[in-house]
Amino acid sequence: MGANADHTTLQIDLEPIGRRVDIAAGQTLLDAARAAGIEMVAVCGGEGWCYTCLVRPLTGRVTAPTTVEQEGIRPDELAAGFRLACQTIPLTDVKVEIPPDSLATQQRLQLEGRETEHPSAPLVTEIDITVDPATLEDLRADATRLQDAVEAIDGARPVFPHALLRDLSGQLRAQEWSARLGVRRTRLAVPDGAIKGTEERDEVVAIVPTGAPLLGLAVDIGTTKIAAYLVELSTGRTLAKAGAVNPQVAYGEDVLSRISYAIEHADGRATLQARVVDTLNRLVTDLVAEVGAARSQIADAVIVGNTAMHHLFAGLPVDQLGRAPYVPVVSDPLDIPARDLGLDFASGAYVHLPPNIAGYVGADHVAMAIGTGVWETARTVVAVDIGTNTEVTLAKGGRIWSCSCASGPAFEGAHIRDGMRAAPGAIERVQITEGGQPLLKIIGDGPPVGICGSGIMDAISELLRTGIINRKGVFDAQMPRVGNEDGVLHYVLAGSSTAGHGRPIVVTRKDINEIQLAKAAIRVGVEVLLHEAGISHGEIDEFIVAGAFGTYLDIASTVRTGMFPPLPLARFKQVGNAAGAGARQMLVSVPRRVLAAQRARQVAYVELTIHPEFARKYLKSLYF
Amino acid sequence: MGANADHTTLQIDLEPIGRRVDIAAGQTLLDAARAAGIEMVAVCGGEGWCYTCLVRPLTGRVTAPTTVEQEGIRPDELAAGFRLACQTIPLTDVKVEIPPDSLATQQRLQLEGRETEHPSAPLVTEIDITVDPATLEDLRADATRLQDAVEAIDGARPVFPHALLRDLSGQLRAQEWSARLGVRRTRLAVPDGAIKGTEERDEVVAIVPTGAPLLGLAVDIGTTKIAAYLVELSTGRTLAKAGAVNPQVAYGEDVLSRISYAIEHADGRATLQARVVDTLNRLVTDLVAEVGAARSQIADAVIVGNTAMHHLFAGLPVDQLGRAPYVPVVSDPLDIPARDLGLDFASGAYVHLPPNIAGYVGADHVAMAIGTGVWETARTVVAVDIGTNTEVTLAKGGRIWSCSCASGPAFEGAHIRDGMRAAPGAIERVQITEGGQPLLKIIGDGPPVGICGSGIMDAISELLRTGIINRKGVFDAQMPRVGNEDGVLHYVLAGSSTAGHGRPIVVTRKDINEIQLAKAAIRVGVEVLLHEAGISHGEIDEFIVAGAFGTYLDIASTVRTGMFPPLPLARFKQVGNAAGAGARQMLVSVPRRVLAAQRARQVAYVELTIHPEFARKYLKSLYF
Repeated sequence: MGANADHTTLQIDLEPIGRRVDIAAGQTLLDAARAAGIEMVAVCGGEGWCYTCLVRPLTGRVTAPTTVEQEGIRPDELAAGFRLACQTIPLTDVKVEIPPDSLATQQRLQLEGRETEHPSAPLVTEIDITVDPATLEDLRADATRLQDAVEAIDGARPVFPHALLRDLSGQLRAQEWSARLGVRRTRLAVPDGAIKGTEERDEVVAIVPTGAPLLGLAVDIGTTKIAAYLVELSTGRTLAKAGAVNPQVAYGEDVLSRISYAIEHADGRATLQARVVDTLNRLVTDLVAEVGAARSQIADAVIVGNTAMHHLFAGLPVDQLGRAPYVPVVSDPLDIPARDLGLDFASGAYVHLPPNIAGYVGADHVAMAIGTGVWETARTVVAVDIGTNTEVTLAKGGRIWSCSCASGPAFEGAHIRDGMRAAPGAIERVQITEGGQPLLKIIGDGPPVGICGSGIMDAISELLRTGIINRKGVFDAQMPRVGNEDGVLHYVLAGSSTAGHGRPIVVTRKDINEIQLAKAAIRVGVEVLLHEAGISHGEIDEFIVAGAFGTYLDIASTVRTGMFPPLPLARFKQVGNAAGAGARQMLVSVPRRVLAAQRARQVAYVELTIHPEFARKYLKSLYF
Repeated sequence: MGANADHTTLQIDLEPIGRRVDIAAGQTLLDAARAAGIEMVAVCGGEGWCYTCLVRPLTGRVTAPTTVEQEGIRPDELAAGFRLACQTIPLTDVKVEIPPDSLATQQRLQLEGRETEHPSAPLVTEIDITVDPATLEDLRADATRLQDAVEAIDGARPVFPHALLRDLSGQLRAQEWSARLGVRRTRLAVPDGAIKGTEERDEVVAIVPTGAPLLGLAVDIGTTKIAAYLVELSTGRTLAKAGAVNPQVAYGEDVLSRISYAIEHADGRATLQARVVDTLNRLVTDLVAEVGAARSQIADAVIVGNTAMHHLFAGLPVDQLGRAPYVPVVSDPLDIPARDLGLDFASGAYVHLPPNIAGYVGADHVAMAIGTGVWETARTVVAVDIGTNTEVTLAKGGRIWSCSCASGPAFEGAHIRDGMRAAPGAIERVQITEGGQPLLKIIGDGPPVGICGSGIMDAISELLRTGIINRKGVFDAQMPRVGNEDGVLHYVLAGSSTAGHGRPIVVTRKDINEIQLAKAAIRVGVEVLLHEAGISHGEIDEFIVAGAFGTYLDIASTVRTGMFPPLPLARFKQVGNAAGAGARQMLVSVPRRVLAAQRARQVAYVELTIHPEFARKYLKSLYF
């Protein structure tokens, strides 16, 4: 809690680039890099969930590794002294090493540190062929000639989609009758219906010069942010990453307002789709430029998002997602030609959209489950991805249950009097001393202007611990810093002289009510799934908290509020953007993709609102 | 030869419409209908190859049935007195019945006379389903719900293409959870590779209101003309027809000049494709309006054309078609989503393009072979489709040979001094009296202005018969009407006072040379295929002459010139636009489509220019 910034200046040396900057005490190493004009990857924008800003302090003292870092940095890297630049605050002058992987402008085809542990087994593989030129004695059509060549090497005869035929003849002659073909091995995607549109025969989806590696793109389309990863298909290596704000934010901050926009405007659906596709095309331009590749090398893609993001990206109607009973158009996996979506990849490339489970349990949840492995372990595991809707999955003994909880936007700062997003000026950590005085950690380098989700969770946990509020959330008016405004009690986190905007920052009885509703919604989801599985929470071996917000939560605080069941803290695991990891696994591994399709079908979706246990458990969960 | 028009006027009564018009003697019944403002179908524009302007003279006298009519009108119709309006010239006042099928503005869903004799077995079939609405207790995705319903009826579970998913949810609700689905039964398309992109599972390609019939479109894209047929898939009935000039004519009259345009202009290929697609979309607008249907009912299409028309329509490169060794990009059948081609049909509809055999033996030749049945008969059959390139196929004992002959544009009037297309003013028939005087038949109602292909064939045949030229094509300067211009001899068909433009219309030694080259090219094609089959021409059971020009030829004249081998005239059969008939068969019958794919693969393509017999046979064929 060292944000009571003094006004000394610290000198930071950035190696091996050899740049020196001065920063104010309290600023992070990421701030230092930015001040020095060095672009680090930092897909998450410094929020700590992407683990891409790895650095290694060489001399001087810095703050100790945060929970985020302890959970997310690989043990061997942590032992070697690696830190996240966005989490690390220098305490003295410091010299720090920025490895090339953490720089936004990487070397060509440079290796990235953290790869999937699953062996690369991509759907699209490379076959290099050289054919005899056409002559009057050998008049085979160009496509036939290539099919014969592939069949001679591979034993199977691939088909050519129409889109590829448009390029084939010119390219074949320009490359002097040699080429590398990207062959989509649909016959590998064995299990019934696992990959829609599965053909008996292989399909050629890309034609590139011999030697050019085939690439894949994994994308997580979040309601707020988009993260994209460029991967070498043959090795599974992530070559480059990029992030962007989801441009649909301009048409509605949350899912429901975007659904409304799509319904109420004549071209609403088309607009929302076009904006996200444009952004993806721009991200791809940056990514391929970074590694010196061509777009036509992108031969496969896996794109995940919640059901609404999935539908809006695919141009599917969302009307029926916006009203009861909230059904998706499609829940099976989709393989859509990239060109049909307006994506400029290899001319025959497909985009794979993993399955949705329900209207509010989407492909991103599936990707999270794949990324964390919760659907494969023999242990009893709960995984939650907290947001405006919180998806919960429970796996036990080969069976899977999932549900969606209407947790609402309180964790994003909405409906909270002084709430705000996790942006500079937000109170993100709160401790309350035995004397009832608050200690605050604020995002960025300024005075506080509001409180974000993790801050309000901390605050309520501390108010409970210190007895300032009771189990029902009622204030003890006698306690320090408890004020009264028009008969509504509140606790003052920052007085008007401390706050950046000159108004006090408080937690009100009404704020506490909002959080009670939100945390009860999540807890009841967990409880109903436990009920369906016939087990008690003590039998949970592992409780996985995924997603950006979940990564920031202080687990002890969260357990104290009752949002999560009271398990030993060691059973909790905060995993950051597991959906992105899952998307990359499905991109480079057919078995992972097939597993996702199979498991998603096996999921027993539990509709909470009509569950007989819902009302009772919900009321019970309201208390802290 | 009754075109020496006198100037009397004849009165024509058109029934059952009850309209009366006066026409000049020598005008046809089609002229009469036009003069009366009655739109007849006449896809071919009155050229006599489409057999759509059937009428029945009731009273009065008309010219006798032409060869065209005798060959093309069904015997029972001919016996009942049916004639082609475009071929029939009244000799007295006449009353004529125009049956509704021959009117361009037909009754809704009216039956058409001439249908394929093959039973309807379309690739896309109708399945009517009604499903329970989604509820909180039954949250299946819309696509899953429909798949379950189809599976319950049909035993097979279809997939939904992405394009259809965009419409499905809205339509399902608008139609109160009932729908007629068009299911593309790809699992029916059995033989290996017969239909490209064959999937194990069926695919839903159209969703229409229950009761709306699914339609199909058959199109013959000729270099000059486009003919389109709207067909009811379940019955195979042709509901409406329409024709248009191929708009690519504006970019080059023949195949080679269009290939040049596509290569030499930056957007050449795209322009040529867009123009023909626009024309098809407009024809479809007319066709569906005529029968009161919606475009979204068009669930399948078969489109044929020569290899260059095929490639330009599909947006495939033609560079390699324009230079040796003239190979196509693709020869296998293609199934391309209609939307990928810019065609506005049912959202999931495909366009089937039958196979090409070689760069100059295209899908239209395959369609001709299917339409005429030449590849199925146990007899020994030759079929030729005469044009700038003349394709020849020979079938004998289950084996098939094909070749392409560079017959050149002489038959279209090019490179002939007074040559012209078969348009008004063209001399289309020539007789020469024993006294050496010409008798001419001219297209239309005016004086002659030139000579078309069938006219020049007649003229040469008659010059040979009367000894005015010898077997080498050399003029006898002593004969009547043989003139000399700068040392080049010619025969005067029409003197300057007879010709419409005041200049004599002649056949020169050079014209005769051009025809010698052209007819030799065709004859050598036939001879080389006979050589390959190891038979003599006497063993040909049937000699089929397809296409517009072939329909106009006087077979006896043509045999006399040596273009066709000297067979009994009864063995020749002029079949008109057999390619359009073949396209319709492949549209409504999977077995016909499969047969086309199989047979096309079995064809032994013979490249004439490198055939050891070519030079010898060619030289021999030059003589008459």
